Amino acid sequence: VNYVKNAWYIAAWGDAIAPGKMLARTLLDVPVLLWRAMDGTLAALHDRCPHRFAPLSLGKLTEGGVQCGYHGLSFDGLGHCVGNPHGPLAAALRVRSFTVHEKHHAIWIWMGEARADLSTLPDLAFIDVAPATAFSKGYLHSRGNYQFYTDNIMDLSHADYLHPNSIGGGAMTRTKARVEEDEQGVSITWLATNESLGPMMDAVLNLNGAPADIWTEVHWRLPGVMRLVHGGVAAGRPRYEGVNNINLHAVTPETPTTTHYFFAATRTINLHDAAFNEQFANTRQRIFATEDKPMIEAQHDRMGGREFWDLQPILFGIDHGVVRVRRKLEKQIVHETNQGATECPSPAIATNK
Amino acid sequence: VNYVKNAWYIAAWGDAIAPGKMLARTLLDVPVLLWRAMDGTLAALHDRCPHRFAPLSLGKLTEGGVQCGYHGLSFDGLGHCVGNPHGPLAAALRVRSFTVHEKHHAIWIWMGEARADLSTLPDLAFIDVAPATAFSKGYLHSRGNYQFYTDNIMDLSHADYLHPNSIGGGAMTRTKARVEEDEQGVSITWLATNESLGPMMDAVLNLNGAPADIWTEVHWRLPGVMRLVHGGVAAGRPRYEGVNNINLHAVTPETPTTTHYFFAATRTINLHDAAFNEQFANTRQRIFATEDKPMIEAQHDRMGGREFWDLQPILFGIDHGVVRVRRKLEKQIVHETNQGATECPSPAIATNK
Amino acid sequence: VNYVKNAWYIAAWGDAIAPGKMLARTLLDVPVLLWRAMDGTLAALHDRCPHRFAPLSLGKLTEGGVQCGYHGLSFDGLGHCVGNPHGPLAAALRVRSFTVHEKHHAIWIWMGEARADLSTLPDLAFIDVAPATAFSKGYLHSRGNYQFYTDNIMDLSHADYLHPNSIGGGAMTRTKARVEEDEQGVSITWLATNESLGPMMDAVLNLNGAPADIWTEVHWRLPGVMRLVHGGVAAGRPRYEGVNNINLHAVTPETPTTTHYFFAATRTINLHDAAFNEQFANTRQRIFATEDKPMIEAQHDRMGGREFWDLQPILFGIDHGVVRVRRKLEKQIVHETNQGATECPSPAIATNK
Repeated sequence: VNYVKNAWYIAAWGDAIAPGKMLARTLLDVPVLLWRAMDGTLAALHDRCPHRFAPLSLGKLTEGGVQCGYHGLSFDGLGHCVGNPHGPLAAALRVRSFTVHEKHHAIWIWMGEARADLSTLPDLAFIDVAPATAFSKGYLHSRGNYQFYTDNIMDLSHADYLHPNSIGGGAMTRTKARVEEDEQGVSITWLATNESLGPMMDAVLNLNGAPADIWTEVHWRLPGVMRLVHGGVAAGRPRYEGVNNINLHAVTPETPTTTHYFFAATRTINLHDAAFNEQFANTRQRIFATEDKPMIEAQHDRMGGREFWDLQPILFGIDHGVVRVRRKLEKQIVHETNQGATECPSPAIATNK
Repeated sequence: VNYVKNAWYIAAWGDAIAPGKMLARTLLDVPVLLWRAMDGTLAALHDRCPHRFAPLSLGKLTEGGVQCGYHGLSFDGLGHCVGNPHGPLAAALRVRSFTVHEKHHAIWIWMGEARADLSTLPDLAFIDVAPATAFSKGYLHSRGNYQFYTDNIMDLSHADYLHPNSIGGGAMTRTKARVEEDEQGVSITWLATNESLGPMMDAVLNLNGAPADIWTEVHWRLPGVMRLVHGGVAAGRPRYEGVNNINLHAVTPETPTTTHYFFAATRTINLHDAAFNEQFANTRQRIFATEDKPMIEAQHDRMGGREFWDLQPILFGIDHGVVRVRRKLEKQIVHETNQGATECPSPAIATNK
Repeated sequence: VNYVKNAWYIAAWGDAIAPGKMLARTLLDVPVLLWRAMDGTLAALHDRCPHRFAPLSLGKLTEGGVQCGYHGLSFDGLGHCVGNPHGPLAAALRVRSFTVHEKHHAIWIWMGEARADLSTLPDLAFIDVAPATAFSKGYLHSRGNYQFYTDNIMDLSHADYLHPNSIGGGAMTRTKARVEEDEQGVSITWLATNESLGPMMDAVLNLNGAPADIWTEVHWRLPGVMRLVHGGVAAGRPRYEGVNNINLHAVTPETPTTTHYFFAATRTINLHDAAFNEQFANTRQRIFATEDKPMIEAQHDRMGGREFWDLQPILFGIDHGVVRVRRKLEKQIVHETNQGATECPSPAIATNK
């Protein structure tokens, strides 16, 4: 299995790791130990001691880094051995480290061999400007390949069938989407006029089923970060009178068959209503956990481990975004594989970039 | 793994699918969606949408068929797409369908490529004529290859050792069976005179251990339907004075290592005694669930996934029926495989016959 | 996967099998049925009937041996068929038997084809001379390859990091061990003077942290039996004034990824204090179950099924014993494999030696 590696993935929400705490999590098939020092600094190492292969995450944090709980070797945040009770601090005594960067409430990790490039970190400024009472976020460990979770967002027509009581109102199905592609991403836009909003947005706008103008945009960035804007207003009224939900959906493969799913939601109405915020967050969590997740897990199971294209899916216009994203991922994986082969062979023990 | 495919298997008991309900069940490694329309009509489709491979069973029944719960495509009972909100009803947009037929309280399914042949449906008329108070049936999902469950019935000498407190009385072991074979099946008959009945039949006949004449016949039909007649009478008395149990044992492979086991029981005594019927059914269910099933599952596990013949079993006279059935299945699988290769190549999307 | 086969493994503690009882346990990937006759005699057979492969352990013990619960075949302790209700006692009708021998409270089993050699049974006389109030033993079914459990004892420096609140005091890390090897085993000795004992031994000796002289010796015998002596005395005092713990650690592979772990403890202080003995045993059990076992299981998982050497461990002086034992096991396995190929081909049905 291949993944895009030279790219930013969300490893965890920032508040999942308090100062002085560790978090062990498998990312792209690699067991990773994340920790935050008392001064807030983050570090990420391959979660395996090079001595006899105990997980470092079973050890403890010390001032200088992490100490293996089995035989006491210590490593700093760059993977250098800084304490060896049993011999010298040989240069070979290293653990692979990964660059991490905290932004937009999230801890981002770069798993590839190439130099981590902060300029490619997705811009999720909408998260930073949202007041706490108009912001919620969550995490779900999910079964199924991560691409199914991307497919699910890139083709929002599913809302009309899977979420008819909350998000779907039929407009996504009736509206032709515009798909655009650039170097780093794929965007898809649905613009609908005089259409039906889903029950939730209809209630927020007090439309009682009256027609609305609706805009929905998904911006997918390599390898799996999606910003979703969904907004509506009474038909014919200017867009600034309407309401927007601006959400994040981000996937990080754990293994070929399991996915870390991160999501966050902001909005442009009831900005300071904490009770509304909580209810809104709970509803979103419930929809994903009881409607999307079971469907995607079942879809994954039904394919029995076979490749998407091998099963010859019969695709429609609604799948344009899905196809573009899948092709872009495949192309990028081929690109990285070729680059890796000709330019930067992976060292036996990788160094921190 | 190969199975006999051009043959009738029980997919479910008829009352397992009420009008307007669906049942998802894997048969011969294929996920199948069964449903019954409000008018009673049955249908069976490959339980996988050809669009993005969601299980159709997560959708809902509509008047015209089943609607996928993910993106709303609808298919009728023959697998034709009858509703596509995202494009035309292209001919390619089909799901494989299977012929089903309801008879003898059971829903029979034909999984192969050849035309379903009703003339080969096993005759289980004994089930139809039994009054409700002399009939019981059941279903058990069981671990282990389906052939072990057939072996178990084709060699009833096991009753003397596995069921000494209920069915076995020693007579099966002491009686040489006669095995006969025809085009579609194998029959095995044990005729014992002046012998010991098992405790259950002894009690029914009030013999208190007095000798009996006993007849036991198993008629196995391809691929896994067995009619079992077990009867007895006080030694020397005419057979029509005795009691018969006429039972069905039917196996349908779910996967190479799991089996759908269907059973039914009728009898020729106490025909209208509902309490006796219930007690009788409970006893049978208990025997199978706590004596046969654990032994067969352990036998399957002990073989560690290796083939029966590869382990070089040491067989006796009691295994004649077992061997005949296994050979007949192997021969039929080879026959179908050869036929398939030369005569009827499987289409990409199979049509309903 | 290969194991050393012509050697003694502990199959069970003696009191795990009462007279007239059976015990089914997989050893070296082989399902084994152990039983003890009413007269105390032990037997061990391959736990699979040669007829249709039911586990014999689902049958029952009779006077002459074990009777299969499926079709009634009986086998004696040497695997000879002594009862066949369905045919003659053919010579081919045999089950592989294994030599077992009870000593030092344990039931030892010889799984190889070569003649069992009692002269190679490890000498654990210290177990026999311990009074009941200074003896305890236990068994734990553990995840992970058995060699990790041997590694754990051959490198006791781990106690300083994994067990700092009980056994470890830092001395093991600071002391260079002497490793010796002979035909059948590897010995490792740590001798420390003027050093810190771990908290438990410190308390037993009432040292309150005062320096001690410490001796620790592990004698490993092929294939996985370790006698561990750990003792201490106030620094400068003669050794006979001190206290010794003499323990057994023995591993028997169940499968490549699971291990039977047997342990026993004796001591030379408070010999007749039953309460102390119980507390001591409970503490040891807790340490192993909550500190060693989780670490070793995590280590095993982290290696993802890959071989120890393939992962290129970075080893230190503390690993001398580990390396010697691993090399000796590998050498012995190669030796047995070569011998088997040239001298004693395995018969289809092995005979009891």
